Order: sequence, then C-alpha cells, then structure tokens
Amino acid sequence: MATVSERKKTRYIGKRTPKYDALERVTGQALFAADLHLPGMLHGKVLRSPHPHALIKRIDTRKAEALPGVKAVVTAADLPPPERAQGMLGGELLISIMDLRRLTIAHDKALFEGHAIAAVAATTPEVAEEALDLIQVDYEVLPPVENALEAMSPDAPLLQPDLYTKTLGEQPERPSNVATHSESSRGDLERGFAEADLVHETSYETKMVHQGYLEPTATVAHAQPDGRITLWTSTQGIFGIRRSLGHLLDLPLGKVNVIPTEIGGGFGGKIYAILEPLAALLSRKSGHPVKIVMSRAEVFRATGPASPTHITVKTGAKKDGRLTAAYVKLVMDAGAVPGAPIGGASLVCLAPYKLDHMKIEAYDVVTNKPRVQAYRAPGGTPAAFAVESHMDQVAERLGIDPLAFRMLNAVDEGDRMTDDRPYNRIGLKEVLRRVAKHPSWTSPLPPGPHRGRGLALGFWAGATLTSTAHVLVHADGTATLVSGQVDLTGTRTTMQQIVAEELQVPLESVSVRVGDTDSTPYTDLSAGSRTAYSFGAAVHNACQDVLAQLRVHAADHLTAQPEHVEYADGRFWLRDSPDQNVDLVTVARRSTFRATGPICGRGTVTRLQPAPQFAAHVADVEVDPDTGKVTILRYTAFQDVGRALNPTQVEGQVQGGAAQGIGWALTEYYHFEKGVMRNPTFLDYRMPTSLDLPMIDCELVEVPASDGPYGARGVGEVPIVPPAAALANAVYRAAGVRLHKLPMTPEEVFRARQATSAIG
Amino acid sequence: MATVSERKKTRYIGKRTPKYDALERVTGQALFAADLHLPGMLHGKVLRSPHPHALIKRIDTRKAEALPGVKAVVTAADLPPPERAQGMLGGELLISIMDLRRLTIAHDKALFEGHAIAAVAATTPEVAEEALDLIQVDYEVLPPVENALEAMSPDAPLLQPDLYTKTLGEQPERPSNVATHSESSRGDLERGFAEADLVHETSYETKMVHQGYLEPTATVAHAQPDGRITLWTSTQGIFGIRRSLGHLLDLPLGKVNVIPTEIGGGFGGKIYAILEPLAALLSRKSGHPVKIVMSRAEVFRATGPASPTHITVKTGAKKDGRLTAAYVKLVMDAGAVPGAPIGGASLVCLAPYKLDHMKIEAYDVVTNKPRVQAYRAPGGTPAAFAVESHMDQVAERLGIDPLAFRMLNAVDEGDRMTDDRPYNRIGLKEVLRRVAKHPSWTSPLPPGPHRGRGLALGFWAGATLTSTAHVLVHADGTATLVSGQVDLTGTRTTMQQIVAEELQVPLESVSVRVGDTDSTPYTDLSAGSRTAYSFGAAVHNACQDVLAQLRVHAADHLTAQPEHVEYADGRFWLRDSPDQNVDLVTVARRSTFRATGPICGRGTVTRLQPAPQFAAHVADVEVDPDTGKVTILRYTAFQDVGRALNPTQVEGQVQGGAAQGIGWALTEYYHFEKGVMRNPTFLDYRMPTSLDLPMIDCELVEVPASDGPYGARGVGEVPIVPPAAALANAVYRAAGVRLHKLPMTPEEVFRARQATSAIG
Repeated sequence: MATVSERKKTRYIGKRTPKYDALERVTGQALFAADLHLPGMLHGKVLRSPHPHALIKRIDTRKAEALPGVKAVVTAADLPPPERAQGMLGGELLISIMDLRRLTIAHDKALFEGHAIAAVAATTPEVAEEALDLIQVDYEVLPPVENALEAMSPDAPLLQPDLYTKTLGEQPERPSNVATHSESSRGDLERGFAEADLVHETSYETKMVHQGYLEPTATVAHAQPDGRITLWTSTQGIFGIRRSLGHLLDLPLGKVNVIPTEIGGGFGGKIYAILEPLAALLSRKSGHPVKIVMSRAEVFRATGPASPTHITVKTGAKKDGRLTAAYVKLVMDAGAVPGAPIGGASLVCLAPYKLDHMKIEAYDVVTNKPRVQAYRAPGGTPAAFAVESHMDQVAERLGIDPLAFRMLNAVDEGDRMTDDRPYNRIGLKEVLRRVAKHPSWTSPLPPGPHRGRGLALGFWAGATLTSTAHVLVHADGTATLVSGQVDLTGTRTTMQQIVAEELQVPLESVSVRVGDTDSTPYTDLSAGSRTAYSFGAAVHNACQDVLAQLRVHAADHLTAQPEHVEYADGRFWLRDSPDQNVDLVTVARRSTFRATGPICGRGTVTRLQPAPQFAAHVADVEVDPDTGKVTILRYTAFQDVGRALNPTQVEGQVQGGAAQGIGWALTEYYHFEKGVMRNPTFLDYRMPTSLDLPMIDCELVEVPASDGPYGARGVGEVPIVPPAAALANAVYRAAGVRLHKLPMTPEEVFRARQATSAIG
Repeated sequence: MATVSERKKTRYIGKRTPKYDALERVTGQALFAADLHLPGMLHGKVLRSPHPHALIKRIDTRKAEALPGVKAVVTAADLPPPERAQGMLGGELLISIMDLRRLTIAHDKALFEGHAIAAVAATTPEVAEEALDLIQVDYEVLPPVENALEAMSPDAPLLQPDLYTKTLGEQPERPSNVATHSESSRGDLERGFAEADLVHETSYETKMVHQGYLEPTATVAHAQPDGRITLWTSTQGIFGIRRSLGHLLDLPLGKVNVIPTEIGGGFGGKIYAILEPLAALLSRKSGHPVKIVMSRAEVFRATGPASPTHITVKTGAKKDGRLTAAYVKLVMDAGAVPGAPIGGASLVCLAPYKLDHMKIEAYDVVTNKPRVQAYRAPGGTPAAFAVESHMDQVAERLGIDPLAFRMLNAVDEGDRMTDDRPYNRIGLKEVLRRVAKHPSWTSPLPPGPHRGRGLALGFWAGATLTSTAHVLVHADGTATLVSGQVDLTGTRTTMQQIVAEELQVPLESVSVRVGDTDSTPYTDLSAGSRTAYSFGAAVHNACQDVLAQLRVHAADHLTAQPEHVEYADGRFWLRDSPDQNVDLVTVARRSTFRATGPICGRGTVTRLQPAPQFAAHVADVEVDPDTGKVTILRYTAFQDVGRALNPTQVEGQVQGGAAQGIGWALTEYYHFEKGVMRNPTFLDYRMPTSLDLPMIDCELVEVPASDGPYGARGVGEVPIVPPAAALANAVYRAAGVRLHKLPMTPEEVFRARQATSAIG
C-alpha cells in the first residue's frame, strides 16, 4: 500500500483539536470495568502464592465453599483439559497456550510470589476475602531462581522440566531455564574488531519495573447458561482476550464477546488475559456475573511488569569515530514463563548505527518472578541505556563530540535494521540536525557545580498488523466511526480528525465508538505504536469507501454517472456542470430513507510498511554531592513523528514516555528479597510525581513516513527509550561517575561517587 | 430483487431448531432495561395528569426540588425550543415531531389521563415518588372528548386548536378533531350496488385494548457532559428512538446511542419514544444516569394501546354469491394526537374479496385518551371483525356455505389490493382449500347444546422497509451475525438458521448479536411482519458477501482465480480439480492472521416486494345460556406462511396472535368513566390466561412468496386478525345472537340473548 496521503493543506489534520473523551474523564463519567454492576453480580478474589517457587501438594477448598455467601471456588482443576492447548496463540499474542494456561492459575507448581492458586466468588468482596483464608494449600517450598544470570547456570533449579532452549543450533539435550537463544548478525564480527583502532566493552544491568498504570486491572465476566461468555474488561486488545478465552475455556470464538471498558492506562501491561479466565471460570461455576478488581499490590505482583536485563556491549571504532563492529549480548528475564522482549531489544539496541559487522545474541530466561508483559517499546529502554551509555564512552575515549559521533555513524534510508529489513524513509539525521541547532544543546549549562548534559538516541520500528474500521453516515449527515480498536492513548481524538478531514464535515459531526468483538471485524491490539498509523490508515480507507457509496447516491440524485461526480467542500458536484450539485446531508438522508441503502464504509489494512521512529533526548542534570540525588534541570525530547496528526496528543505521548523513562532511570524498581517483592505499593515503589519531573520540551521533526496516513509515524513508544541513557550520560558529566545499573537512585549515585573517590 | 431462494433441500431452513435465547430467558439471565445499574444512577418517576382534559395554568416544582435526594425535576419547559420540530418523523415513525413533543410531556394542556406533566430523578424510587406529591399543578379542568363519534360532532370540544382535517378535498376552514379523512375506491360504487340482488349494511364497534406485553416499559439514559446521550431501552426499533431523541433534544444523530436491551414483548406497543426523552432530560439536568421503569398502571395509561373503532360495512351481492360492491366506513380513535391505524384497517378490511366496485372511507380522530400505538396487524382485528361478521351474514342471507362464499369471491394473483397495488403470488385459495378438507371444518361439532362453529379470514400485507446485516467470520470458522435489528419474536433463532444454512456450518457455530445504533448501519424497526422477511433477506445477502470474500482467500490459497472456486459441503473446491480444496476454517484463519483481511459480509435490502399473508380461522364454541360465557372447544388457524423457516417459531407466532385475538374478542377492554381508565391492572383488565385458552392448532400452508428468503412470508401479524370475527360467527351459531361489539363478555352475550328473547 502506498502512502495514504501526505496532503499539506488540511482542515483538521495537524491541528490541536480537543481530546475526544476529556470531559467524560475529568467529570468522572467514563465507565471503567470496576464501575460495572450487573444484577446478581458476585465479587471475585484470588488466592495467591506467598512463595516464589513451590510445589502444590494439595488444595482443600471445602471450608471456603461452606462459608455463607460463597458461590464458587475454582482451582486449576476447573480449567478444561488442555486438549486444544497446543501451539502458540496467533497474531500479536506471542505466548504459548500452555504457558498462558499455567500463568492463569498454578497447576502443580507456584512459579512466582503472587501466582494465582485459587479464586473465590462471593456475594461481597469481604466474604470473598474471608474465604481465601479458609482455603488450605500444602506447599513444598522450593528454592527460587532469583535472576536470569543465576537461572542460566547449569546447576540452577529448573522452573519447567519440559522447557528446552529454542536455538538455531542443534537440539539441546537437557531442559533449561533458557527458553530461547537468538542471534542476528551481519558481516564478519572478528574482521570488524580487527579493523578497529579502539575496542570498548561494557556491561549494564536493569531491574524489574512496572508500567504503573493508574487503573488497576479489573474485569467482569458473565457466563450465560448456553455456554456463551460476555466479558467487560480493561484491555489493549479485545480480540486477543477473546482468542485466549477461547483456547483456555475451550469455546468457539463466536461464543465469547469481549467488551472493552474505558482503560486507565496500559503501556503494554494490559495485553494478556490475566484476570479474565478466572472471572469467567467463577461465573461459569456460580451461574452469576463475577467482577474481579485487583489491589495495587496484586497489580505489582501478578500482572506483568517489564523484563530485568543484563546487557553487554562491545564495539570497535576507528580514530575518526567510524564504528567498525558491534556485539551486544542481551540476557533478559521473562519471569515465570518464556517471553522476555528479546525481539524488541535486539531491534532497538544498534538501530541508529550504520554497521557492516555486527552481532546480537539474546537470551530469553525464566525465573521465579511475575511473567513480564510488554512495557512501552518493550526491551528498548534497557537496550538503549546500555548502548547509548556505551557510545557516550566510546565518543569520549575518541575525543569526539557525542552528537557528532552519532551523526557520523547514523543510518539512512536504504541501510538495514538489525533484522536485515531495509529502512524506508527515516528521520534520524534530521533529528540530529535539529538537536545541533537547538538551544537545549547549543546553549551552555546554567552556571553551578555538579551539573552535566547528556544526549541519547532512541528507536522503535513500529508494529503494523491488521486494523479494520467501519464509518457509518447517518440521515442527518453526521457520522460514527466504529471499530474494535481500543482507545489507549487518544485514538478517538485523532480518528475523529481523520474522518472529519476526509468527509469534509465539522469535527462535532463525527462520533467515535469503540465496539466489541461481537459487533466489529477483527482488529489487532492497540500497542507497538501501531494504532494511529495502521488504524488511521484503515479509517482513511473507510472514509474513501463512504465517499464512493455516497457518490453513487449523489449521481442518482443528479441523474448522472458516479464517475462524473466529485466531492468538494461538503457537496457533490457534477463535473463540468457546477450548478448541478447536492450537499452531503441530502445525499445521506436519501440513502437511509429513499430506498438506496444506508452508508457504511469499510476500511481494512493488513500489512503496511513499518514507519521507523527515531528520537534524541537531551537532559541537563544537577547531582547533589551530599545525597546523590539527581535533579533534572532541563529536558528536551526531539522526535521524528512523520506528521503530527494532533500536536497536543503527540506531545502528550512524548512527555508521558519521557516521564516513564525518567522513573525507570532514577527511582523505580521491584525490591525483591528471595523472590518476594517487598515494595508493592506506590509509597515504596517510587514512581516520579509531577513534583519530581521537569517540564519536558518537545521538538517534533516531521519527515513523512513512506506509508500510512498523511505521512504520520507511530509516536507513543520511542520517547521511553532514550531517557535512562540520556540521564546516565548527564550524571556522568555532572558527578564524574558512570552508572552501569538502573535505577540511579541517590544511594547508588552516592555510593558510585564514594567508590571512585570523586566526592566533592 | 428476485426471490432470494426457494431451495427445497435444506439443512437448517424449515427445521425446528431450538430457540436461540431460550436458556437465557428461562434462567433469568437475560438482561432487561429494568435490570441495569450504572454508577451514580438515579431513579425517575413521572407525574401524570389525573384529568383526561385540562389546561395547565401553573406548575410549581420548588418543594419537590428541595426534597433531600431529589437531583432534578423537569417539565415541558426543559425541552429545547421546537425550532427543528417541524414535519414528520421519517421512516416508519408516522407521527409528526410536534405531536411526539406534546405527547412526551404536556405543554399547556393535558390531553389524557396519564399524560406526563413533570418528571423527577432522585436517589431512590421512593424519594422520587414522594417528590411527585410535592409538585403543585393548577389545572383548569375541561370536558373530555370520550369517543370518536362524539369527537366528530361539530360542537365537540377541540383537543388542538391547530388541527385541521387532512383530506383530498378543499382545505377545511375550521379546526376539527378529525385529523385525516382518507378515501380509497375502485369502480363505480353506485353501479355496483345497483347490480346487486342483495344489499346488506351493518355496523360494529370495538373498544380500546392493550398489547399487554409482559415487560413494563423501561429505560436508562446517560447524558455525558459533552452532550452525548446513551440510552438502554426496551424498544422495537433503536433507530427510530434515536431519530426521535435527535429531534426532541436537538441532538445530531451521531451523538445519540441507543442500545437495545432484551425486550419482553412489544406487539407494536414499543415503537415510539415514550419514556426515553424524559429519562434523557432528567439525566441531562442531573448529570447522572437515570432509570425509569413504568408500573403496570402507567403502561396501561401512558404507553399507547390499540385504537377503538366504529365501522360500518355495506355490500351488494348477486343471488349466486358474487359480491358486486362494498363500502366500508372506518372511524378510528387515535387518542390524544393523530395516528390511528386507518391505513392498516383500510388494507385489511376488504383484502380477501375480488371487487370491481368498492370504496373505503377512513377517519383518524383525536379524543382524550392515551395516544394509540400499533398493536399486531394494527387496525386489522376490528376491520376483520366487522367485515368477516358482515360476510357471514350475507352468506347466510343468500343461503350459501360461508366457506364456499369466500372461495367464490377470493382474490388471486393479479387482483388488486384496496390501495391498488397488484397482488403477487398469494395463497388465499390454497388456505381455503385446506380448510375445506380439514376435520376442523368437515367433522361435525361435538354433540351438545349451544354450540356453534365460526369461520373468518384475515389478511396482512406485510411491511418491508430497510434492513442491514453484517456477518463476521472468526479465525476458527465460527460466525457472528450483527445488526441493529431488534429480536422481538425469535429473530435470532431464525437468522442463526439462515447463516448456518448459507455458510454450511453447524448451527452452534453461529452467534447472533443485536447491536446498537453506534455500531451497526441503519435498519428499520422490528414490526409489520417484516423482520424474518426483510432482515432474513439482508442476512442471506450478507452470507453471499461472506462467501465471495472467502472465495478470494481460498483462491489465493489454491493458487487459482476466484471464479474457478466453488463452495460446497464446508469446503472451497477448485472446479474440475476436486483434489484441490480447502476447508472454511483454514480460509477463515488465513483471512485473519495471514494478512489478507478479516471477513465481514454485508447485506442490505431496501424495498422487497410485499409478501401478502392470508389466514382462515375456524372456531367451535359453546355458550353458557345462564351466564353468557363463551368457551372455546376447538380452534384451528390456517395460514399461508410461504415457507416455515422454523415451524416451531411460526406456530408460536400463530398461537400467540390467535390468543391475543381471543382476548380482544372475549374479555379485554379499557373501562373508561368520563375519560378515566378504571381497570388499569391485570386483575381488572382481563387478558386470557392459559386456563382460558384452548389448544390452538396450526395448519401451515406454504405458497412461496414472490420475493424474500426461501419463499417465506411474514407470519406474526395475520393470526390476530380473524379471531374476533371467527368467534362472533361461532357465537351466532351457538347462541343465536349476532354481537356487533367487542368484547363479547358474558354480560354482553347474556344481554344480547335477553334482547332477542333467544334464551333457552
């Protein structure tokens, strides 16, 4: 598919139109899953393993079942037998059905602290909670596998006796905690290093962090007596939830309806079916609708945070700064079952650099932690933290300005990604040129001690997948866009603009509705910076279909052939006879009441070209020499957005992503003690608040994408990629210490300075 | 459009497949509007006029507003000014916008007892009820206009000073209570009567009756702060409700979403927006969702029952039985604003009879009663009661068997309806032939005194209008049909059959979902015996579209051209190469995950030909000489259904319609005293229970319709048309008295026998 349109003269595209759902949200009227109430509804609670690794010898639920008010108790024994549970879940759900099955509820073994063991539905949440205490579980506690490096050791306890490493080489003989060992390479690494004047190698470590969305995971399931299940749930992808439920509960897809509620943040953490199968099982067993709402501690322990990593980077460079070779080793912790984002990290780590010789090795390793889910540019933040910290050191050792170093090695259209796909039109160099001219880079640091400036790059390839849209035109000429595409990030706002732009109607005439799996054609999840890009293209196509349908009606009205009718300024014109024309409202009314058929335009995109996204962040920091606390003085995010469909929405994405990256960089981490998370509250798990954050300035660069709507690129993910590296590079200059681990808490910075005796 | 298909060899069509929603309904899991609960939801109650006719001088709501818990009080002053309230509501809603506006809530005048005066939203139903008592209304009571004949008198009080009779002749000079005077005629009536050997004239009267649906009218409205309104409501047509709301509340159609809840019976009585505008106004004013559920007394008084009538029939006939002329005068009571079903009655009254000379005059008259709505074959039951009673008398006077008399005069294909449209293929004579051979007609009455047998015919033309359907095919080959077509009468069951039949998949693989106005293309209401017929055709077309889309994918899979691929037995076959084939599931999976695009078939029908429906009912009764009570001994309904898509469903319609007709005939009526209904409960308004009813035997005749799916005709309405006449004719033979008024209660029968001294 060619670029949908790079039209420059637009009425709504590129404008700061108001957020579609703003009023509803700020007045508290938006309905979330936790708000729902159905007649006869029960409340579900989940009993979770207190042990990160334990055999389950016996579960006795009889006392719980006997408690007045308890209507159902379920355990793994209530899942249908896994006959159909073979293979991978299709589409975007890169998890095996067996793994999702054991993640949903522990079978013979608890694999992490917080793993569901049983669930209860009762007339009140209090009774359900009380019933949990009455369930007796006999555990045989096993030693936990606490991190990925330990897990890879040959004498580590095994999480799954049936897990064998997937690798390109020969079939492994013994099971392992390494689920996958992948490699991607180009050229001859040894030759590349041999050509280098400087070879530099460094290692990095990042901890488990959480997406920290505002809305705790919640779901309502209603199992009908004929076997159908309706789910109201907070998810990024209703069709993935449907597919998971179909497999786990052995139901045809047409018997599961997933209705998306408003979602209070996802960031990749609301993709898998986590609570939904438990609520559905409870509803099936009790014959009542069942609601489950997680506590914040459950969200931390049992939803799916971001993967902790151990990354090694080795590069070779000429004296003039040209890179000759790069090797990256990514060891990524998936938690309880396989699925660390090794693909994302592999794509991101070396993306900005032109390299003839390179190799990336990645390990997907299981440990006794919550299974990770995606977190905004999954794998990207640790990968960039490592590589962009490393490149800063290389530039310094070569005595080259860090920006110049990157410009010298920057990729261009026609160069190849690490997975060997060629880049189409990209804006990395344009971004770097913008940085070079911008005061955030050219002006001196504000005077004061312990201050430094850091630069880092970020990349995200952008998913595309399948999107579908229907656009209905009503009898009064107003229109409704409907699709199963979840609005995670302001999608309704941008799509309203596209429909109004294409149909040439007022913005207020366009409504946007997120439909359910029963009433909308299949569409992939909202994730991977694909929504505005792919769904936007589908919406654009649906509008073209609407206009084609209306043109037939207009031609009939004008007694002409459709091919002689043009649409402009809200009217259909008979070409060469401008006095013969008819407005859209008249044609729309006619289509509904004059026997010519209601208007429903359809748009589908299946595989657009990717629209790669590059960013550069510049941070000025001050480090408190007495406490090690890092204060950000100034922060500027440069990003090639292709075309900003709505600059306010785009800036919101850039600022939100940078803010999360800053949290990852400075304060956030899961504090584990022997596999048990000790800080599962927002008091102890320290996300940055508005008081901790600087103003994040946005510099939007617009190099149109080769495909997709109006040249736009996905924008949501790349802003989380550079912050940790940009801040590490700034801290290095401010405090004289190079931090190789995240987060760079005051304690860590202070200790690092002590260790290098750089205090003062 | 040609007949969709009259295919004889079918897998599901014509079979007694189980009712789609039976389990859900009998287990109480189906969700009705009254079951809904939204966060912050208020409860609405409506203050209604105690006077059938009164000026409203003043409404003081201050005390009610001051009551703790009351969140909003609305009156007519809260409706937006009627700037846009001109003209008729389009499509099937044959009511003017101004009339709907004054029906929704009384403006300066209460037009019937039960007319809404104000409405209150409060935190509990009890507080809302209490607040109603605190609203002070100063009325100036006016004399009520109690019936249509009285209303037509020149010195009757006028309901609306701006109402002028619509007529074919010159413009009337004075306002009147007669809204419309219509005429349809053919030939030369005087000549027809002159040719007759016998001229016979009789008059009849029927009272106001109610549809008596099980579920009281209920609705929930949620006005969002941005002006959008979401309505969950029990309605036969979501798009009509949307249109009404749009006009009454001055909202673009795209800003009103109407979600149909399960509906517990409608029968024509759930078409107009009755509660919805009040709930929406209360929600808008209070900022909360508002639920209103009517009491049964409110349902009787303020929803819209069936029109009372005064009908005169005059016919001329030759000695041999051939009719030479017919004149029918229909005076029909619309209640408070115009809209009695004069069109339906005019079409039905003479439909079965071949007439060269005929004239029908109809009057649509306003009175101080609840505004009527449709009730199953609107106008048909009184029309047939009059004409079929009359024809029985004519046959008797001529000494001709009543069945032979009807066969002699029966219409055929090519004859014309009373509105001059020609009949396409019809089954009246086939129905009469079936009666002639059937034991219910040929066998003698069971021995005993005061017994008699009656025969009557019925007709319904059948609406067609617009229907749309989407059929989605999922990755596992299961399918979901989605449409805004409300399931009033078992639609989901029949449509599941059509989809399974056309896609050649198991019945269990097909789900049917009723969508809302935001997510489905425009479709007309479920009424007029049009649903299985028109919607069925749309669904059939959507399935053909699905197969065409799948064929493209299958061809790609088989590396062939789509036109060389055929679908049979659930597989796509390469013509001439039967070893090359692929099953539907594989193709469906491919379409979703292999980048070829999800399958969504679309079907639209706008104007099918009508599929006229004829019925004949035969009733045996016994009349108790001491009480006048009529007991039905045997009841057989013959009906041309074209093709019974699901005989069980069709029989349910026939039996339900006959049962309602029996209620109309024998027991049901609004007992008014000076315009006030005195029997607004099911204790005093006497609907037949299962103990009052005989087994209703169904004889389905199948003369395929000229158009529509598989030859099927609409079946829902015609069964209510003949019962009153069939029973009146049977009562005449059993008790020797001819009743000219409905209902034929024991008291009326007893009195009639007294009057004719026929006791004994």
